[in-house]
Amino acid sequence: MLDDTIAAIATPLGEGAIGIVRVSGPEAIAIAEKIFVSRTGVDWRRQGSHRLFYGLVVDPDTGQPVDEVLLGVMYAPRTFTREDVVEFNCHGGIVPLRRTLELVLQHGARLAEPGEFTRRAFLNGRLDLAQAESILDIIRAKTDAGLAVAMSLLSGELSSRVRRFQDQLLGILAQVEADIDFPEEDIEVASREDLKISVLALMGDLEELIHQARFGKVFREGLRTVIVGRPNVGKSSLLNALLREKRAIVTEIPGTTRDVIEEVVNIRGIPVRLADTAGLRDTDDIVEKIGVERSRELVKAADLVLVVLDASTGLTSEDRAVLELVDEQKGIILINKSDIGDGEGLARQVADLYPDKPVEVISVKTGYGLSKVEEAIERLVLGGQATASQMPLVSHVRHKQALVRCHEHLQEVLRALSAGENIDLVAIDLRAAWEALGEITGDTVAEDIVDRIFQDFCIGK
Amino acid sequence: MLDDTIAAIATPLGEGAIGIVRVSGPEAIAIAEKIFVSRTGVDWRRQGSHRLFYGLVVDPDTGQPVDEVLLGVMYAPRTFTREDVVEFNCHGGIVPLRRTLELVLQHGARLAEPGEFTRRAFLNGRLDLAQAESILDIIRAKTDAGLAVAMSLLSGELSSRVRRFQDQLLGILAQVEADIDFPEEDIEVASREDLKISVLALMGDLEELIHQARFGKVFREGLRTVIVGRPNVGKSSLLNALLREKRAIVTEIPGTTRDVIEEVVNIRGIPVRLADTAGLRDTDDIVEKIGVERSRELVKAADLVLVVLDASTGLTSEDRAVLELVDEQKGIILINKSDIGDGEGLARQVADLYPDKPVEVISVKTGYGLSKVEEAIERLVLGGQATASQMPLVSHVRHKQALVRCHEHLQEVLRALSAGENIDLVAIDLRAAWEALGEITGDTVAEDIVDRIFQDFCIGK
Repeated sequence: MLDDTIAAIATPLGEGAIGIVRVSGPEAIAIAEKIFVSRTGVDWRRQGSHRLFYGLVVDPDTGQPVDEVLLGVMYAPRTFTREDVVEFNCHGGIVPLRRTLELVLQHGARLAEPGEFTRRAFLNGRLDLAQAESILDIIRAKTDAGLAVAMSLLSGELSSRVRRFQDQLLGILAQVEADIDFPEEDIEVASREDLKISVLALMGDLEELIHQARFGKVFREGLRTVIVGRPNVGKSSLLNALLREKRAIVTEIPGTTRDVIEEVVNIRGIPVRLADTAGLRDTDDIVEKIGVERSRELVKAADLVLVVLDASTGLTSEDRAVLELVDEQKGIILINKSDIGDGEGLARQVADLYPDKPVEVISVKTGYGLSKVEEAIERLVLGGQATASQMPLVSHVRHKQALVRCHEHLQEVLRALSAGENIDLVAIDLRAAWEALGEITGDTVAEDIVDRIFQDFCIGK
Repeated sequence: MLDDTIAAIATPLGEGAIGIVRVSGPEAIAIAEKIFVSRTGVDWRRQGSHRLFYGLVVDPDTGQPVDEVLLGVMYAPRTFTREDVVEFNCHGGIVPLRRTLELVLQHGARLAEPGEFTRRAFLNGRLDLAQAESILDIIRAKTDAGLAVAMSLLSGELSSRVRRFQDQLLGILAQVEADIDFPEEDIEVASREDLKISVLALMGDLEELIHQARFGKVFREGLRTVIVGRPNVGKSSLLNALLREKRAIVTEIPGTTRDVIEEVVNIRGIPVRLADTAGLRDTDDIVEKIGVERSRELVKAADLVLVVLDASTGLTSEDRAVLELVDEQKGIILINKSDIGDGEGLARQVADLYPDKPVEVISVKTGYGLSKVEEAIERLVLGGQATASQMPLVSHVRHKQALVRCHEHLQEVLRALSAGENIDLVAIDLRAAWEALGEITGDTVAEDIVDRIFQDFCIGK
């Protein structure tokens, strides 16, 4: 598999100044020799690595020039894939890129699969699996904070923490195995207590990381947010206010799992995903039109529900129905139209009825209270436990699950130690805990999980 | 103006493996020094030009890494702009690119205007104006043939032809001016005839180029094509057949002057633009719904009209109305449904009535005759006068107009010579002819025309 040469267009398709055709593998240089003609007279094959050469891509069969390019040449092993890499910096149009790619494919490369460049970087030891995953996070980051979380993952901070855990586990396992190999030395009782203390310390560290994962995920994937309320309480206005306020940093991103467009608003560094456009419009009449069933689904899938009430009308039975719907959910109750009604009065009434939900008095029309909404979102998401400068290490569900599995195995180790069970059983669970951690860095991960991870990548990455 | 440093994202926005932030100007290197940290230990500032360095973009104020990048460093004057250029090869996501660009702007660059990099290349003598225009053509090329026309323009083939014309004009002008300066030498009568012969030869060459411009424009901009016919003759099916047949090479391109999407089908190298989607759907009921007025507009704006008739019903009065509409227009008459009607009979009847339009018998349902449609389109566009291997040199209306103006001035030269007018007047028109040619290469072009040309470019180019 790794002895062939792969190629793909590595820049987004569209109209731009520059587009790149990337080639990696043993034939990369030979392919460039066939289709690239230097225009400076430099013998580019005799230069060192990491050079740029100005010239033409020429179809060798017809002599027809296809594009004027800068050719980037990087020799193994100092490359992203650890293989020879050439990059054709073409003009950023569909036809010159497609023609250049066609020539590359005709002369010895095959089209890369999604994520295959990064997969080679992983297989060749340039990155561990968590670092490879971070690359997609960097590309898909929705806010600066999300980017910072991804960059921390790329830097290997989580990986080295995980490796330290693994070393500690190996240390414990060595003690246990000493006990298995030399049981007659009768150190068992004392060491069982010592082992428990070591295991407990490790579990505490794991719990801290697992706890962080909650907001790590929000930074990475964004906070799925739904606005609900009966008709005419000002849901659309609130939505538009949030979008308009942040217009400069609103980005449209293609949905990663569904074919929808989402609008992401950056609220104090937190990427807040305001559903997809269709969804957004739907929520406008969420109670009356779609019915309780669909509403419940939308609300249930959300990370955060903003319930809008109307200060000018007071609490109606419809409002109560909406609030019931959101009861189990993380939500903020917003008393709108405080400019024409008794916002504070309604806020007190609602706070009595739903004491576990934050209540904010606002007036979308005048702009009053919008910053309090942002503050409330920030407080609810971060719980005062993380700021943009203190990035959570764990942002992937997959990583969290591996930590949780490791923790479960250690729980079992503790139980077995306390119950005085055979030390062989303890060793088995310690090894399982070690392996669970290895899934994060990819040391012990199954092939199909690796497949699934790289399937998500774009072609050319 | 040229002593400042410009920067922009040079790749299309979207999700991709790589995205580039391009910086050009005297501060480019200093900016990279502030925000780029090499990760290989190499002192990148002490290396030569055209190198790639692996490292991090770091916000110097916070120490926060923003992205992992390859930094391309190219020193003046061997660069596209002839200035120092650095290119940050970032991950191809919106946030890492935006953050990197922000840092570049914070540390001494300003955001480039559309086409400003290419404009600098032009102002610094790296490209002439026609070559600069070719770059946008390369990016927007719709077929391989369109790309070949653009590459020929970039190569300077037209420019050097134009310069040869200018040299010839200078030769003629020198003779005329000798006559002005030394009228007593009495060589006038003979040289007036000689002059006329030289001018006529030049005019012949100009005419050849002007003639080519017609299909040059088609290769560059695509052939605006409308399908018309009364309801149920099979227009949509024909449209779908043309699109489906060519699915692999259909590209969606953003309309360059209007905000619409067009579908471009590659028919024998000719980019055939099937209107915008809205237009396409409209044409389906062109006669009945939109009425003759709108139909006439659409048809008038088209480069080619495909008139569809129905062999199974014969020629109706509605058909005749459609055919009248297209009368003045370049069009092909297609007799559809020949599988269930007398196609040949109807074809003969129509050919008698409209002898100047090609008629083809087809059956979209069975696929019969579709290749004949393509052949007819090719014949009509190229008139047997150009093939993909024989690219027209003139593809821009602006260039054609300059050639036409040059030709007009020469016409005036001829007239003045024949009428025995004052030789000073002849010289004035010769100079005007020379200047008209200079507009193509940009030697004599007005600033506002240059402005208009670069406004069309994307930012980052």
